[in-house]
Amino acid sequence: MSEAVHTLEGWYCLHDFRAIDWNVWKSLTAQERNRAEDELLSLLKQYQSTEDQKLGSTAFYSIVGQKADFVFMHLRETLEELNELENEFNKSMFAQVTIPTYSYVSVVELGGYMAKPGTDPMQDPDIVARLKPILPKAKHICFYPMNKRREGNDNWYMLSTEERRSFMRGHGTIGRTYAGKVKQIIGGSIGLDDWEWGVTLFADDALQFKKIVTEMRFDETSARFGDFGDFYIGNLLDTDKTSAMLKL
Amino acid sequence: MSEAVHTLEGWYCLHDFRAIDWNVWKSLTAQERNRAEDELLSLLKQYQSTEDQKLGSTAFYSIVGQKADFVFMHLRETLEELNELENEFNKSMFAQVTIPTYSYVSVVELGGYMAKPGTDPMQDPDIVARLKPILPKAKHICFYPMNKRREGNDNWYMLSTEERRSFMRGHGTIGRTYAGKVKQIIGGSIGLDDWEWGVTLFADDALQFKKIVTEMRFDETSARFGDFGDFYIGNLLDTDKTSAMLKL
Amino acid sequence: MSEAVHTLEGWYCLHDFRAIDWNVWKSLTAQERNRAEDELLSLLKQYQSTEDQKLGSTAFYSIVGQKADFVFMHLRETLEELNELENEFNKSMFAQVTIPTYSYVSVVELGGYMAKPGTDPMQDPDIVARLKPILPKAKHICFYPMNKRREGNDNWYMLSTEERRSFMRGHGTIGRTYAGKVKQIIGGSIGLDDWEWGVTLFADDALQFKKIVTEMRFDETSARFGDFGDFYIGNLLDTDKTSAMLKL
Amino acid sequence: MSEAVHTLEGWYCLHDFRAIDWNVWKSLTAQERNRAEDELLSLLKQYQSTEDQKLGSTAFYSIVGQKADFVFMHLRETLEELNELENEFNKSMFAQVTIPTYSYVSVVELGGYMAKPGTDPMQDPDIVARLKPILPKAKHICFYPMNKRREGNDNWYMLSTEERRSFMRGHGTIGRTYAGKVKQIIGGSIGLDDWEWGVTLFADDALQFKKIVTEMRFDETSARFGDFGDFYIGNLLDTDKTSAMLKL
Amino acid sequence: MSEAVHTLEGWYCLHDFRAIDWNVWKSLTAQERNRAEDELLSLLKQYQSTEDQKLGSTAFYSIVGQKADFVFMHLRETLEELNELENEFNKSMFAQVTIPTYSYVSVVELGGYMAKPGTDPMQDPDIVARLKPILPKAKHICFYPMNKRREGNDNWYMLSTEERRSFMRGHGTIGRTYAGKVKQIIGGSIGLDDWEWGVTLFADDALQFKKIVTEMRFDETSARFGDFGDFYIGNLLDTDKTSAMLKL
Repeated sequence: MSEAVHTLEGWYCLHDFRAIDWNVWKSLTAQERNRAEDELLSLLKQYQSTEDQKLGSTAFYSIVGQKADFVFMHLRETLEELNELENEFNKSMFAQVTIPTYSYVSVVELGGYMAKPGTDPMQDPDIVARLKPILPKAKHICFYPMNKRREGNDNWYMLSTEERRSFMRGHGTIGRTYAGKVKQIIGGSIGLDDWEWGVTLFADDALQFKKIVTEMRFDETSARFGDFGDFYIGNLLDTDKTSAMLKL
Repeated sequence: MSEAVHTLEGWYCLHDFRAIDWNVWKSLTAQERNRAEDELLSLLKQYQSTEDQKLGSTAFYSIVGQKADFVFMHLRETLEELNELENEFNKSMFAQVTIPTYSYVSVVELGGYMAKPGTDPMQDPDIVARLKPILPKAKHICFYPMNKRREGNDNWYMLSTEERRSFMRGHGTIGRTYAGKVKQIIGGSIGLDDWEWGVTLFADDALQFKKIVTEMRFDETSARFGDFGDFYIGNLLDTDKTSAMLKL
Repeated sequence: MSEAVHTLEGWYCLHDFRAIDWNVWKSLTAQERNRAEDELLSLLKQYQSTEDQKLGSTAFYSIVGQKADFVFMHLRETLEELNELENEFNKSMFAQVTIPTYSYVSVVELGGYMAKPGTDPMQDPDIVARLKPILPKAKHICFYPMNKRREGNDNWYMLSTEERRSFMRGHGTIGRTYAGKVKQIIGGSIGLDDWEWGVTLFADDALQFKKIVTEMRFDETSARFGDFGDFYIGNLLDTDKTSAMLKL
Repeated sequence: MSEAVHTLEGWYCLHDFRAIDWNVWKSLTAQERNRAEDELLSLLKQYQSTEDQKLGSTAFYSIVGQKADFVFMHLRETLEELNELENEFNKSMFAQVTIPTYSYVSVVELGGYMAKPGTDPMQDPDIVARLKPILPKAKHICFYPMNKRREGNDNWYMLSTEERRSFMRGHGTIGRTYAGKVKQIIGGSIGLDDWEWGVTLFADDALQFKKIVTEMRFDETSARFGDFGDFYIGNLLDTDKTSAMLKL
Repeated sequence: MSEAVHTLEGWYCLHDFRAIDWNVWKSLTAQERNRAEDELLSLLKQYQSTEDQKLGSTAFYSIVGQKADFVFMHLRETLEELNELENEFNKSMFAQVTIPTYSYVSVVELGGYMAKPGTDPMQDPDIVARLKPILPKAKHICFYPMNKRREGNDNWYMLSTEERRSFMRGHGTIGRTYAGKVKQIIGGSIGLDDWEWGVTLFADDALQFKKIVTEMRFDETSARFGDFGDFYIGNLLDTDKTSAMLKL
């Protein structure tokens, strides 16, 4: 078996982007709005409790621009749990004022390119912590899906293992210069969703998203082999900010 | 006639993806919801009875993410039967709370690349069982449509029969290493729907979808010649899980 | 003038694909449904009467899958008549329960590649019958639009007349092996709609669509130069089948 | 400054394609329909009066197929006037039964490729008449947007002025053989809308659209450098035909 | 670190394109319309007050054609402020008659290609004024997103710094010949939105948009490396023009 598939997988991941139907929200009575908001806050508490038990993790951010008003990024052990989270949300009163705009299914992945032979990475608590991460509470989130290109001479999957390893090493070097500034979660999605990866970045300074993605784009790995989908960018939502967002 | 068209065809296949309009579902009375659910369960029984009579087969899975809430994958002897299944479902009360999101028409196909000269494969009960299969009850489903690429130097249809046969042999070798872990149904759809094939995978461990599709992508057949459409992934629905999904 | 434009044109053609809005259909009273169905059947009779007078021809088929529930394929002498057919249908009560999903405008075309010099093809009754055809009542229909590719070295329109003629000869040879099994109507649509041609196939055995399109795809004309749009496939609708489709 | 930008511009142009929402139209009372139709006819009169004063020109055609039911093609001196025409229409009662389906903004353009040095074309009444044209009342209209390709070796904008001039000369020669049969208005739209040009053709015989676009496609200018958007085709609407279209 | 990322960033930028739902607008009572218009005018005043305090800037233009009826272009110090502007607008009564059609998130950017070594550009008041600009009140606006191409031999990100610098110098030379005629604001959006840049042009003569974009397209930087998204063009809206637009 090719080394190419030497990846490690952790929690399954669902990004669930939603717009708020403001006309419906405004048509509700104050009492109904209170009830809907209470249901939402109680779901958020429940997600926090799952996180406290280390059975998963959930990030909740607003989205800037018309693509969505907010996103839930859910990490859970199984696809069934992700399905139940969707259904539970859909049955809530708050869901009635939202419109699904985009979603993405993946599984937290660590590339095998840097794995050292003769070790079992799943026995390494650092690696397990990266495969089943508690999502940070950074001020900003950035999500985008991507493929490795397969076009003419720029065909990632026709490279030798050594060539890919070398390209990824350069790529990783750039990533490490952003340590402490940008936290990155890679969701592998070959066979799970339309792109090969879903990348989620967290940072307190949103300009760092622009800087890291730009710098990587000049790296040959992205310059020749990266195809990118739509980018979503947003701001952290806590209870107060959620209430402020919904307050009429 | 070119060997290229030496494929065998069995049952016609319709993938019917649907979202649930939760606002409508919640607006129904408990009595109406019961009636709608009863109609759905009775359709499922009828599909099972067709399967028991070996006149077709139906798989029923939820879908993770916003692309759909569930999929019916129907296998039947004729296109007319598939049309009748659609119409019958559309006339049910449950259909009124669903929104069609994607569908795919194909016919179960076995590639002729491995056929041995001088044999009539339709007399081989193993082959007939693969052309008119009873769909498995695996925990997970994965569906995606695909084409063989025809671009510049990567033009599958300009290869010689021997080159194609050689490429497919490598591809098949990978597939066989997943025997017992992933069950694959190939729907041929040239002339029937927008892509050339619709691939359905079944597995108890959804990670196997990621592993097999990734490993095949590094195989030259996919690396140079595979173009892929959207991927749908889901969880098995039985009567209890269906009721749980619909329960408010 | 280049030989390339030596095509012959006959009746204009409108493919009109429609979905049924089942929720609206079910919301009508039995009396309203009867009236709507009667209006539809009376339109069908009128189309038949036009056909009987050899002033045009209309095919009516259901469509399998979610792309549409049915298609009218109308052939008429002028674009004005096609426009009137559309408007007349749109004003009918039955149209109120339908949703337009796709349409295609073309004109029945015979390629000039095989034309013999020194003859006036419009004096040939066989050719006129092919340019103004009465559409068959085959069990199945298949429709797809297509272009001849213009990309890098695969640019159909940069080939010499002789090269194109040679390619088309091979293509035609395949077509003729399906005589009696597949009936083909080519609608030329350069300047009329988004693709260069709209191809309609009729067959009693739907597998023949798969076989002929597959075999042609291995032919260099399609392999290097064919770009294909969406495929629609369906089943013949007569009065009884129409009533069965609409019966609740 | 490169000769490439030696174009002349005249009136701004707005193509405004609309579908009729037949369900809404049929839901109106006869009196409401009369009032809506009267408003439409009075707008048409106003457009005619602007044309009589040579302050602009408007064409009004039905569209065949589902892309739209009709199109207004408005020529006016300024973008502000086009905006006012849109708003005025949108405020009319008739607009309430229409659905916008496509629009295109451009400015009437004459290519500078054929301009003779040392002359001021704006002093030439023939050229002014072509830049600020009164639109013909031909039986048929054809609209499509297009780009000059910039791909690999087929990059129009990397050609020398002389090469472009030579290509355009061949193109113009074909165009002139259709004089009297096809009238062409070129709208330049670089910086104004999504494509580089919007082409409008007028002809009494719609087959001439097919012939001219086909013949030009075999010309190297289009064969290698032409990328085409969607095609719209339609029939002239006068007062009587408008009333007939709207009559229930 | 590569020189490529030597860009300077200023205010964040949100383009918010909206259509007016004229049917809803017309269904309001005169009193409701007055209230909605008052709310809009009061938001505009608030944006002006932010601008007066040099805490941001907002441009407000109508859009010609069906893509939108108007656009807000907001510049603010943080993504959170942009999010609040969106939410505040969405909660207004006027927002209820609008439909979001497109939005774009970026940050005002000055390219580092022309930066002189050894200087801190953020201490230069001219540069700060360009990074945090007060938007002009030109008669016309033009917006389009763009990428630098990465295809085969036309891969901007595989060029050397010197090659890119040389290309950009030629590009800048063209830009400077439009000084006083076209004002350009570049929004960098790598990592923030779907394209790499969002370009906004302002001019009193809309033909200058066509001229500058055309001239640049013949420059090798755009000819070989520019990929362009949709173009939006519009007219300045002040209080009177806004009232005129909304008056029934």
